[in-house]
Amino acid sequence: MMKKLLLGLLLLRVLSSHAQENLDFNAKKEITSPEINADKSITFRLMAPNAKKVELQGDLLGATNTALMEKQADGIWTYTTSSLKPELYSYSFIVDGLKIRDANNVYQIRDVASVVNVVIVPGGKADYYLVADVPHGTVAKRWYQSPGNNKQRRISIYTPPGYEAGKNKYPVLYLLHGMGGDEEAWLALGRTAQILDNLIAQGKAKPMIVVMPNGNVAQQAAPGEDSKGLYKPTMQLPNTMDGKMEETFADIIKFTEANYRVNANKTNRAIAGLSMGGFHSLHISRYYPKTFDYVGLFSPAIMPFGKTTSPVYENLDVTLKNQFNNGLKLYYIAIGKTDFLYKTVEDYRKKLDGFGVKYNYVESEGGHTWSNWRDYLVLFVPQLFNQL
Amino acid sequence: MMKKLLLGLLLLRVLSSHAQENLDFNAKKEITSPEINADKSITFRLMAPNAKKVELQGDLLGATNTALMEKQADGIWTYTTSSLKPELYSYSFIVDGLKIRDANNVYQIRDVASVVNVVIVPGGKADYYLVADVPHGTVAKRWYQSPGNNKQRRISIYTPPGYEAGKNKYPVLYLLHGMGGDEEAWLALGRTAQILDNLIAQGKAKPMIVVMPNGNVAQQAAPGEDSKGLYKPTMQLPNTMDGKMEETFADIIKFTEANYRVNANKTNRAIAGLSMGGFHSLHISRYYPKTFDYVGLFSPAIMPFGKTTSPVYENLDVTLKNQFNNGLKLYYIAIGKTDFLYKTVEDYRKKLDGFGVKYNYVESEGGHTWSNWRDYLVLFVPQLFNQL
Repeated sequence: MMKKLLLGLLLLRVLSSHAQENLDFNAKKEITSPEINADKSITFRLMAPNAKKVELQGDLLGATNTALMEKQADGIWTYTTSSLKPELYSYSFIVDGLKIRDANNVYQIRDVASVVNVVIVPGGKADYYLVADVPHGTVAKRWYQSPGNNKQRRISIYTPPGYEAGKNKYPVLYLLHGMGGDEEAWLALGRTAQILDNLIAQGKAKPMIVVMPNGNVAQQAAPGEDSKGLYKPTMQLPNTMDGKMEETFADIIKFTEANYRVNANKTNRAIAGLSMGGFHSLHISRYYPKTFDYVGLFSPAIMPFGKTTSPVYENLDVTLKNQFNNGLKLYYIAIGKTDFLYKTVEDYRKKLDGFGVKYNYVESEGGHTWSNWRDYLVLFVPQLFNQL
Repeated sequence: MMKKLLLGLLLLRVLSSHAQENLDFNAKKEITSPEINADKSITFRLMAPNAKKVELQGDLLGATNTALMEKQADGIWTYTTSSLKPELYSYSFIVDGLKIRDANNVYQIRDVASVVNVVIVPGGKADYYLVADVPHGTVAKRWYQSPGNNKQRRISIYTPPGYEAGKNKYPVLYLLHGMGGDEEAWLALGRTAQILDNLIAQGKAKPMIVVMPNGNVAQQAAPGEDSKGLYKPTMQLPNTMDGKMEETFADIIKFTEANYRVNANKTNRAIAGLSMGGFHSLHISRYYPKTFDYVGLFSPAIMPFGKTTSPVYENLDVTLKNQFNNGLKLYYIAIGKTDFLYKTVEDYRKKLDGFGVKYNYVESEGGHTWSNWRDYLVLFVPQLFNQL
């Protein structure tokens, strides 16, 4: 018994100090950062006794974006925000000019080549982004064959709670990322699995499958997930808005409908996307004009730029009218008042008004941000598939 | 046309500068770090013009573990290693005493509360860790009901290429993480999906399902993935080696066999784990003595420490003999020569030798490291299910 206890103590000591790689159990262990206070302010802390200047940078500071942190006697720099609205915020520290992540916060998101920390102030709309004690869907990372792109491509699929155990057929939302994103973006930055779990648990959304493809058809997969190795991510322009994504979208629908128990008809298909994904949704839904009863354009880009010879962008007006003439249940456009794409969306709405077609328009505060795109998703999804 | 072009240029400029959140397109864009050179040395770079001292820290430096980087005229600190063996390495920078991650490398792994960068030197064994242009399996994050723990719990499942399209039944490897890990560990640090894809593509492993549960039964899921929110991860002792994981492992087998096309028999079940997961594998395979034909103990802990009243740890010798008497095809033990658990594993081997039972023993260089655990996985998996 004594031997066991001694071994146990040894095991604990060694595992807790240097045995398991990469573990770091020094003074930093006692620092909590970020700490969300009772009044929904957040306190940030960084142990940096040698630093001369430490700043906090992030959307939670509003327009100022940057704030000086204060050095305490123990070498820990701190900053406490004012009370914050419920939201998923991102932030970094800047130490003597060097942007770094919070050593005490393991939660991060990647956006192209930048990685920043995230913190969620709970309550209100942010509760949709948190994991609740409700039934959970499954998130799968799969590969499909895209004959149109002559490659295997990676795709993220959310299936709702109960999918595997049941025999029901489900409707499908195709959800497309923006420029700089990939098949990980709506899950990581968009909190799609949490949002869907929570909306479904609350009876606000119909159980549905959400298919999140990679809209950069020059890529097989998100950076690090294909045979190019661990390269530094870059924007995928101009290969993302040249018509190829739209032309080959049938490969994705075909894969989905061959591999999942879905209701494979227009009434049970929705497509939505943000920014470039809104652009893709606009053109895909028009290029396959009898395919989707629900279309969501979140802060959409409208027209391609640069040269493209793709048939996708030809005859915009005629094909748009054709799409609406075929009938659809929801054509949803959302944009923030300060979004740099506001004017082009306004022009697009005038065009639709000129056609005399109906669409649902949401104008929010703010700009071209994930905060808005998560909001739009939470607003859009409950309107799908006759849930309301 | 000119209007489109102008809009295009505007779109590109805005998206590339400040529209999409968190993107950072300043001077750092031109820095490549890490850069793997032709001779398999690696050059690291960090823009830190105000820093006084910058160090590189990581397993790629061998026993010294830390090296001084040199400041160049442009404010970029650099360090080039000697030629390195193919491997997945992890590293950090230390800037004036502050440990930070490489701003130019988005690839990272988390180990409990520490996040470090990773880099893979290709060739040899490391090619198993890289995504190759081969058919890929699916990785799903699912939830199962564990009546024994009275909770929903998250679980990672790898299904091999072709699983979804076919009708075959598959064998199952249950693969268990160590102390400090969770259902993400074997995928993130262990590169299990890549290893399996590559071994299967090369005909070296039989297509199999790999089930990676969370061995901390006090947890529902990995940090950030359950309703506790985005808390700071900690070691889960003492709730990880108290018998509850073993007692409730039947819930995991039941879930797997009810949800996947598997051959639900002893010949087609394997269990393996590292460190605490090796301990779990030892005791689970003995506690369910007619269940597994293949058992893998990678750097295993052997006996629980502290007090436990669980029936799991009673009658070790009798139940072990019973397990071997029931017949099994492979009992595999692997450990590094400098592992702090070497002695207890040696004692355990003497016990097995005393019983006169057969096992397969691998003694490697090195210690209690993911490098070894990935090696053991690559050695173990080809021996499963009559592949050899």
